Order: sequence, then structure tokens, then C-alpha cells
Amino acid sequence: MSTESDLREKLATCTRIFTMQQLIGMFGHVSVYQPDTQRILICPGAGPDKPNTRPEDVLVLDLDGNVLEGTEWLPVEWPIHTTLHAARADAIAVAHLHAPYATLFAIARREFRPVTLSGSKFGEGVPLYPDTRMVLTPERGRRLVEVIGDKRAALLQAHGIVVIAGDLEELLYDSLILEDNARRAHQAATLGEVQFLDPQQCREYQAELRPGFGPGATWRYYARLESRWDRQPNSSVAPFG
Amino acid sequence: MSTESDLREKLATCTRIFTMQQLIGMFGHVSVYQPDTQRILICPGAGPDKPNTRPEDVLVLDLDGNVLEGTEWLPVEWPIHTTLHAARADAIAVAHLHAPYATLFAIARREFRPVTLSGSKFGEGVPLYPDTRMVLTPERGRRLVEVIGDKRAALLQAHGIVVIAGDLEELLYDSLILEDNARRAHQAATLGEVQFLDPQQCREYQAELRPGFGPGATWRYYARLESRWDRQPNSSVAPFG
Amino acid sequence: MSTESDLREKLATCTRIFTMQQLIGMFGHVSVYQPDTQRILICPGAGPDKPNTRPEDVLVLDLDGNVLEGTEWLPVEWPIHTTLHAARADAIAVAHLHAPYATLFAIARREFRPVTLSGSKFGEGVPLYPDTRMVLTPERGRRLVEVIGDKRAALLQAHGIVVIAGDLEELLYDSLILEDNARRAHQAATLGEVQFLDPQQCREYQAELRPGFGPGATWRYYARLESRWDRQPNSSVAPFG
Amino acid sequence: MSTESDLREKLATCTRIFTMQQLIGMFGHVSVYQPDTQRILICPGAGPDKPNTRPEDVLVLDLDGNVLEGTEWLPVEWPIHTTLHAARADAIAVAHLHAPYATLFAIARREFRPVTLSGSKFGEGVPLYPDTRMVLTPERGRRLVEVIGDKRAALLQAHGIVVIAGDLEELLYDSLILEDNARRAHQAATLGEVQFLDPQQCREYQAELRPGFGPGATWRYYARLESRWDRQPNSSVAPFG
Repeated sequence: MSTESDLREKLATCTRIFTMQQLIGMFGHVSVYQPDTQRILICPGAGPDKPNTRPEDVLVLDLDGNVLEGTEWLPVEWPIHTTLHAARADAIAVAHLHAPYATLFAIARREFRPVTLSGSKFGEGVPLYPDTRMVLTPERGRRLVEVIGDKRAALLQAHGIVVIAGDLEELLYDSLILEDNARRAHQAATLGEVQFLDPQQCREYQAELRPGFGPGATWRYYARLESRWDRQPNSSVAPFG
Repeated sequence: MSTESDLREKLATCTRIFTMQQLIGMFGHVSVYQPDTQRILICPGAGPDKPNTRPEDVLVLDLDGNVLEGTEWLPVEWPIHTTLHAARADAIAVAHLHAPYATLFAIARREFRPVTLSGSKFGEGVPLYPDTRMVLTPERGRRLVEVIGDKRAALLQAHGIVVIAGDLEELLYDSLILEDNARRAHQAATLGEVQFLDPQQCREYQAELRPGFGPGATWRYYARLESRWDRQPNSSVAPFG
Repeated sequence: MSTESDLREKLATCTRIFTMQQLIGMFGHVSVYQPDTQRILICPGAGPDKPNTRPEDVLVLDLDGNVLEGTEWLPVEWPIHTTLHAARADAIAVAHLHAPYATLFAIARREFRPVTLSGSKFGEGVPLYPDTRMVLTPERGRRLVEVIGDKRAALLQAHGIVVIAGDLEELLYDSLILEDNARRAHQAATLGEVQFLDPQQCREYQAELRPGFGPGATWRYYARLESRWDRQPNSSVAPFG
Repeated sequence: MSTESDLREKLATCTRIFTMQQLIGMFGHVSVYQPDTQRILICPGAGPDKPNTRPEDVLVLDLDGNVLEGTEWLPVEWPIHTTLHAARADAIAVAHLHAPYATLFAIARREFRPVTLSGSKFGEGVPLYPDTRMVLTPERGRRLVEVIGDKRAALLQAHGIVVIAGDLEELLYDSLILEDNARRAHQAATLGEVQFLDPQQCREYQAELRPGFGPGATWRYYARLESRWDRQPNSSVAPFG
């Protein structure tokens, strides 16, 4: 079991990797929940320097959204995190991202479906939360919980995505493969009809994976990259929801 | 109230951020107006080093386009700025940009409409200035004023965009979200039918925003990025109008 | 004839260039075969730092997939390499890549065909391996061998590509031109009907090439680039299969 | 009048800028002609380090393609340059580029037409050279001369482009605006019907330009950028013809 200090460190790293990979934008956020203490660690929202997020910038909330520690840059959409952590025992880590490609499936009227082997993890679908107001209240958060059901992610209409995972490593991995699958589906659409993986193909592929290998290897790989990242701006991706 | 010296500093920063984000190109320009003195500060046009624009490179014009200070690189399309600053009390800051994605809506015959939450700020539309000559005279500038009407921005046919705002922070923010919305609308078009936000959705979203928060946070974020920018070339975006 | 030490050096360089060019992703791999000793050199799979792959990270396999040297990060899809090296005398070098554009032709239902002069090297086509399970067994590897037949490359459904060449320099060159051709075919598709090179045009172009010149020049060029590469992350390309 | 030493310096700079802007690829080349001495300066072809092309790397040819100075990396398509310099008095500078977007119009069956104000310089069209063999002989070069006629550029089927200008500054500027126009036309095509500039609009725009201003300003701007370029690889653009 991780200490809160370890989790702060890991949450800050995860936020910086999402920033480096241009998935989070200025206004996205990531959280991790500790079931034993019911404390939520959450990264700052629209702070001035997301590429340099530090462990000490992390805020602590309770499940009602009361701020227990930290004073600055609480994300206004904190109910995304509190309601999901409260509602699902498997929602230990939660990200709200403005991923450039996945978000396109929350703008165009086209269902998100797997087109890559790794994307088969989302073979059960990614539902759409249709409200175009921000998730500013627990009530809206509960509506989001209903929309997600037992799925791993949701698309937020005209806005971005939410991803749920069992820990931060899985959260990073799942977010990256969701975005990768979205990008390839988007690009392949230019070439005409696309071949989706059917549920049977998804199950077969997933059954042959070594459990936890992908998330672990991916975390190591990107943490290494992030440790030497020069934090230069990348103008080619939009950061807004 | 800002001193002219503060405004020069801020205008130079804004120009560098637009350059960093590849929105302005070699030939775009930005201005800010001081109602009390009726002096317009404007960045150089086709100068040799836009990524390093300094406060002392800024020119000063009066509302008739007479150069009061500065000698080099007056933008030939200065009437965009003088006529807008003169015509609209809310046009304190004006940018003429060659934004890669927004300009596509001045090339293709497709109306610009909001597809993102933040893009709802442009829910009242972005009109098209159809003249394919540069805005070289006050007469053409006044025609542009008519086309814009009470809107926040205009598309210039085959050329670029003009954005109007109440100060430089809002100008940066509005330009970034306009471009972001344009990019996502462009990319989503590959996937088929796109879901636009209707006027009611735009109003609801805007009504829940904390006034001034987005522009302030965005300015801080990009000014921080710009302060560590290595000014390397970015070959992936076109700079010409 | 190269010594194994030279081949290790070259294989590591080739892996780093593929990483730099964003063709391999976290989970791809490259191998080179020594017919006289029947030893296969293969780069690590999902190791923590592909941009810095070193000669001493290379593993050695026999044709049955037994690990003779090296302990870490044997790619799980090693049968791609063992079966191809065993089956075809001209398969001295083999790459399994997650090339962003070529892979689109393994997602969309569109045949890969040459649209560039250099792409004419693949004028005889690139067949599709339709199984959406990873190539985890020699049996699946042999099925891949059947699909490739006497061709230079194969598309792996929803996954990536395999490229076969007579040495590592040709492998690099062929992979780059395959991806280049795929990118241009993809982009040109937006503009409408595309003009493919017919078999006669492909043969004519190939007949006028100086043998070996392209691969040699390309290797030198990219090895030079790689030697000064700063190993910064590139967020714009997806690394997953 | 420039000395040959000045021209060598300028040709090397121009080659480095084309490399930085990803327009030339590994195998493109640029030349400049001196009418008084009938000597052609040409940059190396597939040399090992185009980003660092130096004045002393430049070769000198006569109009028959005999090498007068320099020994390494004569481009195999030298007849592009010798025949154009010989045939047209206004062809002082000639570039053969593998520009990513302009080349798409030599792959898709879509005519190149102006969609940007600056693109109006090519309002008279860019003809297509339909031969898919390289321009390896003076005979093929003369066929290219016929295809170009009195135009400023040509598209080479499945291959790249040729641009002709009165000096190296104009060559850089014209190549950049041709590529910029091609990129925007390509991107706008995703949005539906595109509005081209008609011949009258092209003439009106061009008539209001200050002669030579664009090329001069563009040269200064890019030469400055190039002087601080870190020569890092850019994996996002294809270098092959």
C-alpha cells in the first residue's frame, strides 16, 4: 500500500506526463483516492505551470469536496472526482482530460469503437455525457456516474473525456491507448470504411495480455521521458475544453 | 489603469506568445488602445525577429494612422487597427492573425460555429469580410467595421482573422479558443456530422463562468511558457496570409 | 561480412533511429540474422528507454526462440522474427513497427498502393495479416510467413507492420519509404481520387536506381541526425499497436 | 551584382532554410545561375548532413552538366537545373523540392489553385509534369521546360515540385507561399467546397504589393531563425520523393 506521500509524488508525475503528452490542457485534472482514509488527492486545475506540477502543489479533498489541504487552484469541476470515487470501488484514479483526438468523438456524431489491438480494452464502449454545462455540482457528477455505468471512460459533449482506473499507472496507460485508438480511428476515416474489432476479437486479445504489464511498462517509459523533458511549448495541440 | 510603459511590455509579450503559438505568422500584428490619450500601441509587422519582439520595438500611432513613435516595420494593414479602435469603445485590443485553423473557415465555404464549450463565446457567429485585397486604407477598414458589427471577430477571405477584445489578456484568450474551436471543428468534420452548440447552450455555459478567470489564467500560463521558450523554428505551421 | 559486435552496434543505432522517427513506438522491435551462426540479434521490446538503446541491451536468440544472451525485455512477439528469418533467405533484417501512417492501411479497408516514386519499391503490394491476436507463437509466425509470401512487407490488422530486408540499411530505408508513401496516400485521399503508379511505372523507376545508393545515403543521413538527437518527447505520434 | 563567393554563401543558407522548413527532404536540391559566366552553383544532393550545408559544399556546373568544381554528391537530377537555367532568362534560381503539401497535388487528381492572398502569385497555375521517371537526362529536362512554359513552378507526378525565380530570396519566398497555399487548400478540402481566387482577384492583390518586399522580409526572417536552429530531427514530415 502506498503512503500518501508516495501518492502525491506519483500524482504529480502523472500530471506532468499528461501535460507533456498534450492530453490534459490548461484546465484538466487528475485525482487518486485512498479508500482507507477516504481522502482524495487532486492536482491543481488552471495553475500557472502545469508542466512543473510538484507533489506539494497537490490538494486534498474529502468525498464532499471540502478542501482538507492546499489552498490554490482547486479545479471547479471537482465533483467529477468526488462522485466517481464515492460511487465506484474500482475508481481509485480519475482523470478529466481534453485529449485532442478522443474529444473529437464528443463533437462529431460518431460512436467511439476500437480499431487497434490495445484499444480493445475499450471494447465495451465509451458512453457520451450529453450535458454541455461543466460538472460544477455533485448532482451533475451523479448524472455523470449514471452515464458511465460500469464502463472505463466517458466522452463529455463538446468538452473532453473522463477516464477511470484502478491506480495511476493504469490511468496513464488507459488514457494513452484511448487517445491512440481515437487518433487512428480519426485518421483512418479519411481512407474510407474502417474495420472495427468485434467483441470476440477484443476479448481474445485482452485474454492473452500479461496482467499489469502494459501499464507498468508504459509508466516507466513515460516517467523516464518526462524526467528529461525540456518543457518547451508545443503549439500543435489545443488545450481548451 | 496601466501606464503606457506597462502596456508596451504587455503588448510585446502578447506578440511573442502569438508567435510561439504559431497564430500570427510573419505578417500579423497586434495593437492596444489608450482611450484617454487616443494613442495606439502596435507591434512591428514584417520585422526580422518576431519571436523576440521587445517593448522598445512597439510603434505608436494616432487614430489617423500617423506614426507618433517608432520608425520601423509599421504594418501595411494599420487601418485594421485605427478604424476598429475608433469605431468601437470595447475594441481596446485588436489582433490581425494568420491562424492556421480559423483561417480555413475563410477559405472553405463553411460557416464558423461553436463545437467546444469555450468556443461558445463565439456563439453569435464570426462574420466573413469578403474583400480579397489587403486592408490598406481607412475606407477598407470602415468596411471591415461594418462587417464585424457588434461581433468579437471576423474572418478575412483567403487571408486570416481579426479579433477584438477589452484588453490584451482577453485578446489572447479569445484568439486561442477561437483557433481551438476551429481546429476541433475541422478535425471532427472528417468523422461526419458535427454537433454544434445552439445559442441556448452557449448562453448557459457562458453564464456559469467566473468573469475574467479564463483570460487571467491563460495569460499567466502562456507568459510562463513563453519565458522559457527556446525560440526554435516550428516548421509545421504556415505563416502567410 | 560484419562481426556480431558490429551488428549489435548497428542494430542499436537502427532501433534508436526508428524511435527518433516515431515509427516503432514503445512495443516494436527489430532483428538481424547471421546465417553462418544461425544467431538472431534482437532489440529489447518494452524496455524503459528505447531512445537510448545500447549495443549491450541487444538479446541473442536461436531460430527456436531460445534466449542465448541477454535477460531483459525479450519481445513477446519474437516468433515474428524467428519464423521469418528461418523461412526466407532474403530476410536478414526484420522490423515490427507501429508506423502511424502505414498502420492506417491495416485499419481502413483500403489497399496499400504506391503513390510516390520511391514507394514503387512496394509496387507488388503489401498483404494484410488478418489475425487480431498478437504473433505469440511459432504457429502464428508461420501463418504470417504464408501471408507475406515473397513480398517485402505485411500489414498487421489493427496493429502495425512487418518489414523484411537484406540488411539493416535497407530495412531502415524501406520502412521510411513505406511510411512516407502511406502518409502521402493518406493525405492525398482528402483531395479526391489518387493516381497510383502502375506496375510498368514502378519497374521503370526502379530500373534506373543506382543499386544500394538510397539505403546507404539514408542510413548515413539519419545516423548523423540521431547522433545529435536530444531525445525530447514527441507527443504528436501514437506509440501503441 | 553578387560575387560567386556571396552566392555560395547564400545558396548554402537557402538550402539550410529549406531543410529547416522540411521542404527539401534528403534528396532535393537548389541552384543559382550566373549569366555572365554561365556557371551554375548547386547544393549537394543526398549528402550526409543537409542541415549543415556549407558554402564549400556547393558544386559548380556548366550548362552541359559538366562538374567544374566540387566532387561529392552531385544530384542525379542535375538536368532539371541545367535545362531550366539555359532555357529561361528569368530562371536564375531553381529548386527541386519534396514539399509535403504541394506534392499532394502531384498525387491526387486535383488542380493546384490559389486559395490564399499570397498564393495568388501562382494564379496562372502550376502545370503537372506527368513522367514518373526521374529527370536524369537533358532530354527529360527539356520536356520539363516545355511543361512549365512561362509559369513559375511545376508539379512532378508522384514526386515533388520545381520552383523557378529571379533570385534566391524570391525562390525561398515563392516556395514557402506555394507550400502554404497547398497546405491550406488541402486542409480546407476537409470542410467542403473551397473558394478559389479568380484571376481578377489575383491580379488586384498582386498589383498592391510593394515589389520585392515579401521576399526580402521573408529571407531576413528565416535566415534569423536558421541562425539559431538547433538542427534537431523533425519526424513529422516525409523526406522522400
